[in-house]
Amino acid sequence: MLDFDYNVPTRIHFGRHAMEKFESELQTVHGTVLLIYGGGSIKRTGLYEKIVRILDDKNIAYKELKDIQPNPRISSVRKGIALCQDYDVSFLLAVGGGSVIDCAKAIAAGYYYEGDVWDLFMGKEQAIKKALPIGTILTITATGSEMNGNAVITNEQTQDKLAIHTDLLRPRFSIIDPTLTYTVSKHQTAAGIVDIFSHILEQYFSHTTGTMVQDRLAEALLTCCIHYGPIALEYPKDYEARSNLMWTSSLALNGLLGCGKQTDWATHGIEHAVSAVYDITHAVGLAILTPVWMEYVLSDETMTQMATYAKNVWGVGSHDPNVAAREGIKKTKQYFIELGMPTRLSEVGVAYDSLKMIAKKTTLFGGLGHFKKLSEKDVLQILEQAY
Amino acid sequence: MLDFDYNVPTRIHFGRHAMEKFESELQTVHGTVLLIYGGGSIKRTGLYEKIVRILDDKNIAYKELKDIQPNPRISSVRKGIALCQDYDVSFLLAVGGGSVIDCAKAIAAGYYYEGDVWDLFMGKEQAIKKALPIGTILTITATGSEMNGNAVITNEQTQDKLAIHTDLLRPRFSIIDPTLTYTVSKHQTAAGIVDIFSHILEQYFSHTTGTMVQDRLAEALLTCCIHYGPIALEYPKDYEARSNLMWTSSLALNGLLGCGKQTDWATHGIEHAVSAVYDITHAVGLAILTPVWMEYVLSDETMTQMATYAKNVWGVGSHDPNVAAREGIKKTKQYFIELGMPTRLSEVGVAYDSLKMIAKKTTLFGGLGHFKKLSEKDVLQILEQAY
Repeated sequence: MLDFDYNVPTRIHFGRHAMEKFESELQTVHGTVLLIYGGGSIKRTGLYEKIVRILDDKNIAYKELKDIQPNPRISSVRKGIALCQDYDVSFLLAVGGGSVIDCAKAIAAGYYYEGDVWDLFMGKEQAIKKALPIGTILTITATGSEMNGNAVITNEQTQDKLAIHTDLLRPRFSIIDPTLTYTVSKHQTAAGIVDIFSHILEQYFSHTTGTMVQDRLAEALLTCCIHYGPIALEYPKDYEARSNLMWTSSLALNGLLGCGKQTDWATHGIEHAVSAVYDITHAVGLAILTPVWMEYVLSDETMTQMATYAKNVWGVGSHDPNVAAREGIKKTKQYFIELGMPTRLSEVGVAYDSLKMIAKKTTLFGGLGHFKKLSEKDVLQILEQAY
Repeated sequence: MLDFDYNVPTRIHFGRHAMEKFESELQTVHGTVLLIYGGGSIKRTGLYEKIVRILDDKNIAYKELKDIQPNPRISSVRKGIALCQDYDVSFLLAVGGGSVIDCAKAIAAGYYYEGDVWDLFMGKEQAIKKALPIGTILTITATGSEMNGNAVITNEQTQDKLAIHTDLLRPRFSIIDPTLTYTVSKHQTAAGIVDIFSHILEQYFSHTTGTMVQDRLAEALLTCCIHYGPIALEYPKDYEARSNLMWTSSLALNGLLGCGKQTDWATHGIEHAVSAVYDITHAVGLAILTPVWMEYVLSDETMTQMATYAKNVWGVGSHDPNVAAREGIKKTKQYFIELGMPTRLSEVGVAYDSLKMIAKKTTLFGGLGHFKKLSEKDVLQILEQAY
């Protein structure tokens, strides 16, 4: 186990009555709030009205930044920063899923940065010394952004999709009411589950030894995805499934599984390059790429761990590690198919000709991944095998 | 799953080099520090000298409260509060195991309470509105106190041992260096493992349904105890075993396993009454009482969950839930025996005549437990069966 720091100060209010805590969380909010949300589903569900009524009741001034897209754009972030400057905003309230929260985080970091906010994503993450405080009301289970300091933003001009990570961006509070996800579509629900699953795998597969705690916890959360995923798809208002998936999602990426380990994140890196260019759903890319990545990195060196995964997560019985590992990969792929995910990049509109450019983008800052270090050539092979 | 709030703001610095973070943690410490520790082992290991040198280098004034006992006493707490008042102490630095940290927490809470601090333990926990900040340097793996808001204190006059719990008492930071536990004796190491195991079981067995996340996480951590416990006993300087046990311990009682569930804590309640009177090691009492409690509460209503425990934690294969549940209890008992724990209260100096009085003490505030609600009569039967 490697040395680590672990600090997750986000106050979580979880459950059917979580929104009742919203008002008390506003007690420490002074000045103008920027209310950030997506395509208007929060207006259809009545959540918007509820929030605005509480802000009004408490005489809290607010401005709005709406229409945040999936794969949120740097242009939205810049617009948000300008609003914060113009209206002296002191608190960001993100209502939605990971895209909305990530956009809020980029605004929070960019507000105090003198240059253009995109710099922070281009390797200048260390320049983040201060950030506006953020609160979230989560409506989609997927990214874990509600409990971590990560943000992923797309630059639509350069077609790059890059991430920043700092504890300064962890939300002050997150309100997590599983019933708010009842109206999330089947496809979006499935996408969320794939995203969670991938977050866990990115931290699970590692050459760091002596991390049984993290590894067994990761397997525990994978087991919950496998159990509840199909239930949530079939019964969208099953509270047990929705609540377990939602809590799994937050825990999967708050640092618990990755602390003390060298984590991988190559698949995410490749997928970000794909969806920066093609604007496909992040999890669709992950569902296609993950099994291919697993096959590609399977070697004598990685086999034991892949076989452990197959045994502990999928109950694969084979004592031959090669057979077990391959069976684990097969089961993973099958699981994503059952969730309704495509299996090939060619199915989602990616042009074969663009694979070289995507491989180049993926390795913008050099090789990636740790379980197996991938060069531009490796990435291209993975993309080709996934086509 | 029940609604819950979850907030663990403690900054954890974990690993061989964790002490290097101590200095930066002192940056926000202004005014006099109260350095709280136990029987002097920190002087033998050189840790005391290291801490004092850093405090001196940073010109931080400090007072000392030493000789904190296992099963820490309310008299030590009162002494600590007086020191804080006399010397205008603004920060508590607890260096040791759970007893030292719990003592610090009681001081932290009592300092701002106008009446006698014991009131807070006698049902007035709600009166804690403010607390002195605490930092910890952990030297024993057991209680999880380094990452939670719980404190257990013994009143030696009344022979009561009672607990308080509030998020206000969560340490600001905890330095967790597994190498500091290399010198912990075999018996104390074993006691710590039993304590962790018991903390997990107290939260695991519950009638709250739909908590797969919490349940699988609990099983994951139990698995780590089972795997690493015997290794730590045989090889006290095995970093892998020490680090995994130490992190398991912190996670076992920071709220992660109990959130969203009705937890039990009856065995702890009974044990606290035993060790309030007899000053036995807490975990020795737990090792004796836990399997007896499990047998006592086994019924048609609890059988399924006990069988799940047997299957998922101990790999028991029987499909008959009654057989499986009993096998799980047997394995638990056997595990504690292998760790060197006694199995009977009669072995540790408890007088048979005192069992009635202990049962009465246990139910001071009424019945206890939730997996099965225990009356004074139930507690007496458990004590008799454990004798």
